Amino acid sequence: MQIIHVHVSVKPEFIEAFKQATIENARNSVKEPGIAHFDVLQQIDNPTKFILVEIYKTAGAPGAHKETAHYKLWRDAVMKMMSEPRQGIKYVNIFPGDENS
Amino acid sequence: MQIIHVHVSVKPEFIEAFKQATIENARNSVKEPGIAHFDVLQQIDNPTKFILVEIYKTAGAPGAHKETAHYKLWRDAVMKMMSEPRQGIKYVNIFPGDENS
Repeated sequence: MQIIHVHVSVKPEFIEAFKQATIENARNSVKEPGIAHFDVLQQIDNPTKFILVEIYKTAGAPGAHKETAHYKLWRDAVMKMMSEPRQGIKYVNIFPGDENS
Repeated sequence: MQIIHVHVSVKPEFIEAFKQATIENARNSVKEPGIAHFDVLQQIDNPTKFILVEIYKTAGAPGAHKETAHYKLWRDAVMKMMSEPRQGIKYVNIFPGDENS
């Protein structure tokens, strides 16, 4: 299991457009065989801050995701919406372990 | 659904002790009726950084969690292990919505 939290800062005027584009990407992403979860979170005390919580089943799944049409559409659509480059941080799951996932 | 990411920075010499104490807390926390998820993540490129991903079912559940014996035991045990005060950030789930949780 591979866990990536992608932190995105969005320009205030694009918050709603970013949400719509990202929901569409997430809806398609969860259909990919290598993706276990693709959650989209918005920070309550700062609605310009989002996290995409991406949980992949295999080592090759993140690369496969970046080759999909829905990812490329999202990537291009949100480019102008972000106030700074997004940042992906990788995590290992300590609890629960993979046996419970 | 209430989502809190608790960011914890741990002194290097306490990484293993923190993991054990936090796994024990998580094992007990997931038995609480108000808790949907209680995941523990360790950052891959900086193993002193952890996130507790806490997902609560009701508005009262976070308060109830802080009254449990296992939370108080964890809170006291990890006090000396942290290199700075921990920080909780609250999120709302944009995708999936509560209907899918």
